[in-house]
Amino acid sequence: MARDTARDGSSRRARRAAGLIQLPWRRLHNPYAPMQVVSADQVEALHEASLRILEELGIEFLLPEAVAMWRQAGATVAADGVRVRLDRALVLDLVAKAPPSFTLHARNPARDVVIGDGHLVFACVASAPNASDLDGGRRPGNWQDFENLVKLGQALNTVHCFGGYPVEPIDLPAPTRHLDCIRAFITLSDKVFRPYALGGGRIRDAIEMARIARGASEEQLQREPSLFTNININSPLRVDGPMLQGVLEMARFNQPVSVTPFTLAGAMSPATIAGALAQQNAEALAGIAFCQLARPGLPVVYGGFTSNVDMKTGAPAFGTPEYARAAMAGGQLARRYNLPYRSSNANAANAVDAQAAYESQTSLWSAALGGANLMLHAAGWMEGGLVASFEKMVLDAELLQSLSEFLQPIAVNEDTLGIDAMREVGPGGHFFGAAHTLQRYETAFYQPLVSDWRNFETWREAGAPDAASHANRIWKQLLADYQPPPLDAAVLEELDTYVAKRKEEGGVGSA
Amino acid sequence: MARDTARDGSSRRARRAAGLIQLPWRRLHNPYAPMQVVSADQVEALHEASLRILEELGIEFLLPEAVAMWRQAGATVAADGVRVRLDRALVLDLVAKAPPSFTLHARNPARDVVIGDGHLVFACVASAPNASDLDGGRRPGNWQDFENLVKLGQALNTVHCFGGYPVEPIDLPAPTRHLDCIRAFITLSDKVFRPYALGGGRIRDAIEMARIARGASEEQLQREPSLFTNININSPLRVDGPMLQGVLEMARFNQPVSVTPFTLAGAMSPATIAGALAQQNAEALAGIAFCQLARPGLPVVYGGFTSNVDMKTGAPAFGTPEYARAAMAGGQLARRYNLPYRSSNANAANAVDAQAAYESQTSLWSAALGGANLMLHAAGWMEGGLVASFEKMVLDAELLQSLSEFLQPIAVNEDTLGIDAMREVGPGGHFFGAAHTLQRYETAFYQPLVSDWRNFETWREAGAPDAASHANRIWKQLLADYQPPPLDAAVLEELDTYVAKRKEEGGVGSA
Repeated sequence: MARDTARDGSSRRARRAAGLIQLPWRRLHNPYAPMQVVSADQVEALHEASLRILEELGIEFLLPEAVAMWRQAGATVAADGVRVRLDRALVLDLVAKAPPSFTLHARNPARDVVIGDGHLVFACVASAPNASDLDGGRRPGNWQDFENLVKLGQALNTVHCFGGYPVEPIDLPAPTRHLDCIRAFITLSDKVFRPYALGGGRIRDAIEMARIARGASEEQLQREPSLFTNININSPLRVDGPMLQGVLEMARFNQPVSVTPFTLAGAMSPATIAGALAQQNAEALAGIAFCQLARPGLPVVYGGFTSNVDMKTGAPAFGTPEYARAAMAGGQLARRYNLPYRSSNANAANAVDAQAAYESQTSLWSAALGGANLMLHAAGWMEGGLVASFEKMVLDAELLQSLSEFLQPIAVNEDTLGIDAMREVGPGGHFFGAAHTLQRYETAFYQPLVSDWRNFETWREAGAPDAASHANRIWKQLLADYQPPPLDAAVLEELDTYVAKRKEEGGVGSA
Repeated sequence: MARDTARDGSSRRARRAAGLIQLPWRRLHNPYAPMQVVSADQVEALHEASLRILEELGIEFLLPEAVAMWRQAGATVAADGVRVRLDRALVLDLVAKAPPSFTLHARNPARDVVIGDGHLVFACVASAPNASDLDGGRRPGNWQDFENLVKLGQALNTVHCFGGYPVEPIDLPAPTRHLDCIRAFITLSDKVFRPYALGGGRIRDAIEMARIARGASEEQLQREPSLFTNININSPLRVDGPMLQGVLEMARFNQPVSVTPFTLAGAMSPATIAGALAQQNAEALAGIAFCQLARPGLPVVYGGFTSNVDMKTGAPAFGTPEYARAAMAGGQLARRYNLPYRSSNANAANAVDAQAAYESQTSLWSAALGGANLMLHAAGWMEGGLVASFEKMVLDAELLQSLSEFLQPIAVNEDTLGIDAMREVGPGGHFFGAAHTLQRYETAFYQPLVSDWRNFETWREAGAPDAASHANRIWKQLLADYQPPPLDAAVLEELDTYVAKRKEEGGVGSA
């Protein structure tokens, strides 16, 4: 009961950070039973279908080394040398080697996050080719936007980690870009980050830089994974070479890999939720099995990204009712294999308007209520991933904060029931002045970041600001107040020495 | 399996109505287990607390006739003659007499709705003092807006019924206003509507007009309830006289009553979710017990409206994480008594912006996933109920349609799994041209009403319309294309004769 009371009080206390009231940084655990949108029988039917797909159709691995590993493991390799057909026993034995959860260690231990085991982790927008804000409009990704978005991701307490480059800084040369980006993650933030599995070289650099940032030995880093990557299956049924090289490098250092099929129903998978889910499951299992082939016990995440296209235009759609059900069913499938589950806060809006909000909210809540453990693109994603938006980042922070409060259990005890307060107030009275109310005045309820609850007249006199303009004001304030997290001077020096050396060597060359 | 296939196909076929693609009018059944945010023990603790409130504190009934009924039933009446203390056995015995579900019969039988039994019914915005649209701005409610909002509610297939006057037409004289409003519901729409329990007279008129509209006898109307009302408890712990008169009149004709405590935590109830829920439960049980006292077996609905105020300003807040958890816990409580559950699509936004969308979406999904059966204010509600917005009505229709599709079970069978399509397409291929895709081209996925999925360039060239401006265009088109539903000439004549007579009599007089 003492614990429950505390939940209603100090643990929910809003902290004033960067001049704005935010909820404090905290790990989230989902206390509710996950929603189930398919029956246990249907889960088994999807499971069965996905095993048939891998056995009968197979899947292409576009890396000779990977195909050789599969051959060695007993898989059937087609005459083309790329398509492997995977026996169900082989797949399931490998998948069973993956751990049900793991911890990602940030350079600041207070920012460690747990992936799996009922936890929910929010990762910042990743991989957008463009950035956008209300003042500057939409432009190709660049270094200044990259740095500012990392600063914002650091400043927003509700963002647990970085799920990739918030925007692609195309003004930096490709062979050394990753060195600048990883250095920025480490110096501008103290949260976990994600390098890209685009060949082994970038991964090697990122792992070494993460090791330096933590002041850890290689052995410690292997025991305590410090970064994660995500590979997308090139659906249908194909895994590209550079991603597989990245996986092999991650596996060498025991760093976690999320495997996410790109199953847009009607384009990259059948135009049915069931078909898209069966294919997603087949592809995810194949990718995860490969991870276990590379290193038994490698921490992995089952990724779901099933949505649909607009059948009239072929445009990808997100936050749809199809997306919502697929996100929940995806959780059921991941739990079928006792694996952590990754989903996304996705939407297809072009503006930070009502559509951006309702599509995102649909994606976010369905994934979270469906038991997602890792929410990629949780803050800032727009236009189906083509844009990282500064205003959307703040809007999403509001959605994430609200969701995180929804995940706090209700405290029911003599104190919170407040019968004495009702007695004091009496029929027709008012609770504003009651002792029970005054005791919890500051911490009773969630305080929003963006929502404007002023009455209409006051709001109109203030210029009738909409949510997007509030978000615009807030990100500017967050950036103006931004302070980099402390970093040991010796660590910074070692990091800079490494980056300089690798740049001299030409980075990853023309790769 | 045949049934499942049909679900993926014809039952989901979008119909072109009023020049726009809408989902067809259909009854909704929630196929998923309701979310539970409190444990069974916590439900019992809330139940216990609410019984203690009624036993120890009591509740005021501001109608002598009601108090006399309570006294007769064995309740303890305080010296003030208004506060009654209710023994738990008395309350629970009465509540147990209420049916778990009932059907509301519209004048068009195709528009009948089931309240309870896993069904979900969406009712149009009600009781707003103001109307608003992007062209005309915000203005006090008037007759033209009333008629237009009823037409919109009729035109939108996803709106099942009317939960009250969408806006209060204050340009009509109060004693006869209800006659014009009920006549408009009957002539402009064929859906179920709700009169107000503001004394017995208005209810009597509404019931008689509903009887005429259905061409039914009084006995038939009693067997087949045709309208419903809602009473709010004047929280804390007070029920006003005119509402009780309305209840007695509804009971006389066996017409359903929804009982909704107005428990804004921190103002009308304790500043805790548990306290607000305990009080909500006490007040709802007392109101429902009174309905059963008036007529054993009267169809009733357990209403929940628990939200919180902004503690800094006292402004009511909606769509908050507190609201979401209370909406779900409210469903658990209603099911504890085997009663249908009413909630609302509430928000506190001043504009049809991202805030309006995310607050509404939070309210709507939490209530629906928590097992709500009747969603009042489902379309058009803004500013915590101060405004009925034309654009919000269309925006909400999008949210409701999307939710209704989310509630369609996923069909998992050999056909939907589409393994042959995957075989045909092969690794790296595309499903657009696959036979499996072409077969379901038109009906595969939800088609949005408002969402704009064009790519950024095309969207910008089209003037970069946001969701609110799409909604503006859509309601205008719906009104331009509006056709009144057929009404028998004899029925209309009888209705008009009744209205004319009652107007001559002065309506409900000065009441």
